[in-house]
Amino acid sequence: MCFLGGERQLKAGSTVTEEARSGFTNRLAAMVAETPVGAFSDAALAAAARAILNFVGTAIGGSTQPSQAILSEAIGVGAESGPSTVLGTRIRTNPLSASYLNAASANVLDFDDTHLPTVAHPIGPVASALLALSQQRPTSGTVLLQSLILGVEVACRLGRSLTPAHYARGWHITATTGVVGAAAGAARAMGLPLEHTSVAMAHAATQACGLVVSLGAMSKSLAVAGAARNGLLSAILAERGFTAPANAIEAPFGFVDLFGANASVDLPRRIDRPGWELESVQLKPYPCAVVINPLVECGRAVAEAVGSDEIATIAAHGPPLLLIRANRPNISSRGEAQLSAQHALAATLLHGQPRLEDFGEAAISDLRLADLRARIGLVADLAHSIDSARLAVTLHNGRVLEWEVGKNVAIGQRMLSPQDLEAKFVTLAVPVIGEERAARIMSDIAGFGAAVDIGAVMEKWNFMEKWN
Amino acid sequence: MCFLGGERQLKAGSTVTEEARSGFTNRLAAMVAETPVGAFSDAALAAAARAILNFVGTAIGGSTQPSQAILSEAIGVGAESGPSTVLGTRIRTNPLSASYLNAASANVLDFDDTHLPTVAHPIGPVASALLALSQQRPTSGTVLLQSLILGVEVACRLGRSLTPAHYARGWHITATTGVVGAAAGAARAMGLPLEHTSVAMAHAATQACGLVVSLGAMSKSLAVAGAARNGLLSAILAERGFTAPANAIEAPFGFVDLFGANASVDLPRRIDRPGWELESVQLKPYPCAVVINPLVECGRAVAEAVGSDEIATIAAHGPPLLLIRANRPNISSRGEAQLSAQHALAATLLHGQPRLEDFGEAAISDLRLADLRARIGLVADLAHSIDSARLAVTLHNGRVLEWEVGKNVAIGQRMLSPQDLEAKFVTLAVPVIGEERAARIMSDIAGFGAAVDIGAVMEKWNFMEKWN
Repeated sequence: MCFLGGERQLKAGSTVTEEARSGFTNRLAAMVAETPVGAFSDAALAAAARAILNFVGTAIGGSTQPSQAILSEAIGVGAESGPSTVLGTRIRTNPLSASYLNAASANVLDFDDTHLPTVAHPIGPVASALLALSQQRPTSGTVLLQSLILGVEVACRLGRSLTPAHYARGWHITATTGVVGAAAGAARAMGLPLEHTSVAMAHAATQACGLVVSLGAMSKSLAVAGAARNGLLSAILAERGFTAPANAIEAPFGFVDLFGANASVDLPRRIDRPGWELESVQLKPYPCAVVINPLVECGRAVAEAVGSDEIATIAAHGPPLLLIRANRPNISSRGEAQLSAQHALAATLLHGQPRLEDFGEAAISDLRLADLRARIGLVADLAHSIDSARLAVTLHNGRVLEWEVGKNVAIGQRMLSPQDLEAKFVTLAVPVIGEERAARIMSDIAGFGAAVDIGAVMEKWNFMEKWN
Repeated sequence: MCFLGGERQLKAGSTVTEEARSGFTNRLAAMVAETPVGAFSDAALAAAARAILNFVGTAIGGSTQPSQAILSEAIGVGAESGPSTVLGTRIRTNPLSASYLNAASANVLDFDDTHLPTVAHPIGPVASALLALSQQRPTSGTVLLQSLILGVEVACRLGRSLTPAHYARGWHITATTGVVGAAAGAARAMGLPLEHTSVAMAHAATQACGLVVSLGAMSKSLAVAGAARNGLLSAILAERGFTAPANAIEAPFGFVDLFGANASVDLPRRIDRPGWELESVQLKPYPCAVVINPLVECGRAVAEAVGSDEIATIAAHGPPLLLIRANRPNISSRGEAQLSAQHALAATLLHGQPRLEDFGEAAISDLRLADLRARIGLVADLAHSIDSARLAVTLHNGRVLEWEVGKNVAIGQRMLSPQDLEAKFVTLAVPVIGEERAARIMSDIAGFGAAVDIGAVMEKWNFMEKWN
């Protein structure tokens, strides 16, 4: 019975040098624990408040999805009670379960946010942990927003160090890095010292999980929800003296070795430069997978130029990853629709852009959309990166028209203006909680920066009261 | 902003062929869901009952560790109540939390069990899920034991398909494969059909986590505990219709691609052959990491031949993995002591074998043990595999003696006789729950096979009653 073949088996995946390893977690932890209150610009704090509004909106909007009810019942929240709100519902539970369910609902509609350099959605895990915690331990708005910035900073910095191979290989980066970000954010909100912050991140590292193959099904929520819950748990455990090797992230055979291939943990300390990773986090303009966005941008231009009934066929060119992740000509559920390049593009052609309702049951069985989906073929092209695409549209009259990101379609992702964000929030929240509550929450979150006690503010959101 | 470099980035880690992939989960799920009740030999059922006794003993023994109190408080079990017992304690909670805490306590002393071909400890995650569940849903002893056999079968089959690179690279195989085994076992106990069993395993796959670098600290419990809880949750979710791509394990870019390097999922169906993987699971003879066992076996022979005070130095030769995982000349906690080849060997030289008390606080600061530890050097030798070792002992009188597994020390791991197992149970349980309760539990578990309702049997264990 021979177990190991030899040294070859022990070779780790990364090329991280000893020097680069040394202190990576420690440097991150120092940033989390020791960045002074005055170091956050008004612009960064405002971006954090916008991120919270976007998060709460998507969580409320997602809370009525059938998967959320199953998840709530399975973890037994109906049987308990606690201080923390499951957004959009009457459920109050402990902070761990609330963070779990809120992270799932904020992500379930694929309408949350994107850190463009890594395609992660970092806000959900971090914000879920922080809001749930703030309802148990008095937390000021300043602390909440700064903790969000720092938690997102850690998740995204870690994401950058694993990118691009990590997500491309199949790890769900939102969850794998999100759990560490949630731990870091919670550690800051709890005021943990540097040493405990490192340990919290190490606890998170050993709980990191999430497979991209789960996307498109309800199971995508499991790792995302777990990232929030387990990140929060990690900080609570560290505070209580639960021990860990504090360098679990950069240690040989540790997190970066296992989750990264050719990973680098030698990124310069962002804290030494102006700005934060949060400022690279875009609030999603469309409720579908971000890898589809370049196609959608081209599709918007097509929709302005030609009617959908003029279109015979479309060849949609994108990077290989687009095909691997989003080639779904046939769909039977919201999750699949959100990950279907054909469906999102068809909805764009028909309605000018993909709207929330374009991924619901009616849209999935809409014959006009099915007809358009069937006319769209995806083409893998190594010339394309994750943020580029080209559409070759053949019309019934024989003409072929081309739209390409960077050529006749604007480069970059569409940004939400303050008005767009409010409109997005209304679209998501009003059908669930009504106009009055939605308006109050928008106003409250705009004032988060000045709030003395976020938990007290959330208490007045009054989800417990019966509505409808 | 270029995200992907090209095809190279997309290359997955395994060399699994399409043919081999096809239906791997489905075949496992079919075995779990459809193996007839009559297919289990009396020997297999008896082995399962012994595994349960060993599990309950280590869980009771581990329940008083400081890490368990922190974990219980952090997940808030004090604040709730439920049907399921946290073994060895007065805590009753929901099945998810009970399975979580029991899996942690059963593993915390490193005295649980080992599937030798993979060095995984599969019983904890599976048994924890099943016992906690049986206190909520009436479960007969036959169903419990058969579900244990099948859950362990899945965990070990998956472990074999990932071995050896998986553990050697740094994945904590007990947790990564344990969560899938727990899901499978729970699915059988719940009577889920084949399709839901596949989905339960897919839910587990996306929640798989665990880093070997956490071993030696309290954080090693996090992934092991999570494996039980999340495996059970996976089965509950599948039963309720929570969806997943059922081939998440063998799908391209899925579980095997990510967690295995050169993995094979083409193992023949064990069900077609006599016997079960459980029969390769050894109940641990020593309370320390299994990679140290060959050294301990040599050390037992040394202790019989020479007195510890005659020893000047020892060169302990083993495989590179022994050094990577267990080279700890200095120790400051139980977790480190259990993972210290030097400490375990020193205790063996002094006491004839490593005993439970040799890893407690007194032993850690015992000067005689510290002196012996300082005399032991580890030597990495590619000629050794995980189950071989050689000791070169230099005596004060200048003589050099050698002991080697397979040469003058018996090959293979020491097996526990029925009497050994009872003695082990007594050692673990009596200090925590007293002789009377320990005797009752031993007797009850011996009768598990004939019990109509395991939950009702466990109810009589009466941990709620105050003791000491």
